[in-house]
Amino acid sequence: SATAKVIDGKAVAKQIRDEISAEVMRMKDAIGEVPGLAVIIVGNRKDSATYVRNKRKACESVGINSFEVPLPEDSTEEEVIKFIKAFNDDPSVHGILVQLPLPNHMNEENILNAVNIEKDVDGFHPLNIGHLAMRGREPMFVPCTPKGCIELLHRYGVSIKGKRAVVIGRSNIVGTPASQLLQREDATVTVVHSRTPNPEEITRQADIIIAAVGKPNMVRGSWIKPGAVIIDVGINPVEDAKSPRGYRLVGDVCYDEAKNVASAITPVPGGVGPMTIAMLLSNTLIAAKKVYNFQ
Amino acid sequence: SATAKVIDGKAVAKQIRDEISAEVMRMKDAIGEVPGLAVIIVGNRKDSATYVRNKRKACESVGINSFEVPLPEDSTEEEVIKFIKAFNDDPSVHGILVQLPLPNHMNEENILNAVNIEKDVDGFHPLNIGHLAMRGREPMFVPCTPKGCIELLHRYGVSIKGKRAVVIGRSNIVGTPASQLLQREDATVTVVHSRTPNPEEITRQADIIIAAVGKPNMVRGSWIKPGAVIIDVGINPVEDAKSPRGYRLVGDVCYDEAKNVASAITPVPGGVGPMTIAMLLSNTLIAAKKVYNFQ
Ligand SMILES: NC(=O)C1=CN([C@@H]2O[C@H](COP(=O)(O)OP(=O)(O)OC[C@H]3O[C@@H](n4cnc5c(N)ncnc54)[C@H](OP(=O)(O)O)[C@@H]3O)[C@@H](O)[C@H]2O)C=CC1
Ligand SMILES: NC(=O)C1=CN([C@@H]2O[C@H](COP(=O)(O)OP(=O)(O)OC[C@H]3O[C@@H](n4cnc5c(N)ncnc54)[C@H](OP(=O)(O)O)[C@@H]3O)[C@@H](O)[C@H]2O)C=CC1
Repeated sequence: SATAKVIDGKAVAKQIRDEISAEVMRMKDAIGEVPGLAVIIVGNRKDSATYVRNKRKACESVGINSFEVPLPEDSTEEEVIKFIKAFNDDPSVHGILVQLPLPNHMNEENILNAVNIEKDVDGFHPLNIGHLAMRGREPMFVPCTPKGCIELLHRYGVSIKGKRAVVIGRSNIVGTPASQLLQREDATVTVVHSRTPNPEEITRQADIIIAAVGKPNMVRGSWIKPGAVIIDVGINPVEDAKSPRGYRLVGDVCYDEAKNVASAITPVPGGVGPMTIAMLLSNTLIAAKKVYNFQ
Repeated sequence: SATAKVIDGKAVAKQIRDEISAEVMRMKDAIGEVPGLAVIIVGNRKDSATYVRNKRKACESVGINSFEVPLPEDSTEEEVIKFIKAFNDDPSVHGILVQLPLPNHMNEENILNAVNIEKDVDGFHPLNIGHLAMRGREPMFVPCTPKGCIELLHRYGVSIKGKRAVVIGRSNIVGTPASQLLQREDATVTVVHSRTPNPEEITRQADIIIAAVGKPNMVRGSWIKPGAVIIDVGINPVEDAKSPRGYRLVGDVCYDEAKNVASAITPVPGGVGPMTIAMLLSNTLIAAKKVYNFQ
């Protein structure tokens, strides 16, 4: 049997960055403005620092202004909210992002709710989520990672309407919005989670699988209907003595088995990962276009 | 084979009204206040007038104050919103309800968004829907009809956790919130809609079926797994020469076939119907308790 087509998220993300870069240039030429993204990071988590650095670089690469506020671990909720409010009022900032996770002494809900919904480029505001869940309403912004998943399906010509889809995982930032996006495009969606007794049996019915669990190689070849399309969101470090860092990254799907059953699959790394930041740039551009009424 | 148990919504709704009545009395004795519900109705639709009358009667029966504002069909959006705002500011009103559908010249979204979310006893505000969709968040109010469906499952001891559930229909007021409530209780939920090519096959996998479609007798006996529990939300008039009114009401599920396959089923009428108003009273009581901090 043939091997699955590799859905090359890295290449698609590059293409999207090029498109955004051209749009930013067009905006600058036409109205003398460019989009701006503000990122607030609290504490010294190494992974968070890496993500924020990558976001800054991505902004630079497409001509989006980036503003970074690093705050000490022992900052108060009020201090973080003070910065958010300043960015809410700053017309050169079109998107505001608070890097998660926050330190334990802070209430994530209070902080995220302080972001003006017109600048909520992460799409995490409950009002945004509400609009995403409702028929006949349009969210201002779609959360970046699930938006990236759907964008990959679109760019690879995978039709969604009328298809069976299974989303494994139901987090607020990936699984739940991914299931809502698939349903908005008329897939018939089942959400599998940690209390599902028979995930294998259900997953095997899917034409489209989105896995967002955080369990290395959980989805085996036997879980997959021949010809299914797989979007693997998981990014899991596993020990690997042969790697210079001592570990490598694998997805939630056992790639080596899946590639012999699926018709198309995203690799890890190089699949969904690069799409997330591309979608953040896309949301920031959308926010700026709205403010300047620039089409 | 045995016949399905009848889930008697009328009896459960009466029991709930009795419970609410006792709570309202206790509140009145303790703090000298009772809950108040304001209903705004625009135009002369006969069915809407009936619903509103039933709501008023139900309020009276449990000691909740009811306020009714009937507005002419040709009222403007601004006039409706003016009344909503007055009720938002009125401390004797704890719940505000705008009877739907509104006349075509009004924007439903603008009007529903004007209701203070602390008084949104219908649970239709997008912020409420957002919280319902999010893990770790609690909606202020759960929409009445789906809340009634789940309440019936609870009162009949139907366990939800780990069960397969199929919700047929994905409207903002019934199907979607019903699917979210089932998932919050750890069912594995599939949402079937008008673009699902094989609804029968999918529905047959369900331990719990909630049908909210609006198609008389659509769910046949062959769609049902033996022993499944069925909540039939549909209320569909079908011609019936033998009825004095010339029609009778049937559900979305073919009751005569389903009763021989299911383990339990709601009848139409007398199933979900009476629960909707009972849940509206319940939400109004919850709203008032919150305002007065009365436990
Ligand atoms: N590519 C990218 O840019 C991004 C990648 N990720 C990666 O995606 C993965 C998921 O992230 P996130 O959604 O934030 O994770 P969360 O931990 O927030 O959610 C995980 C979900 O998986 C479910 N789950 C856990 N165990 C099982 C199981 N055995 N079977 C079925 N479902 C299970 C949980 O169910 P329950 O709700 O019942 O607990 C939960 O809903 C991670 O590997 C993360 O690193 C995340 C964000 C961005
Ligand atoms: N008991 C009570 O108190 C209440 C009862 N009802 C009754 O419940 C029923 C549903 O109401 P409501 O949710 O407002 O209706 P809507 O018309 O808003 O929604 C109907 C849903 O059913 C789906 N649907 C339509 N045809 C099919 C089909 N052939 N197969 C599968 N799905 C289909 C639609 O799918 P799509 O989205 O693809 O169009 C839509 O999501 C009605 O009979 C109504 O009278 C409603 C409210 C309260």
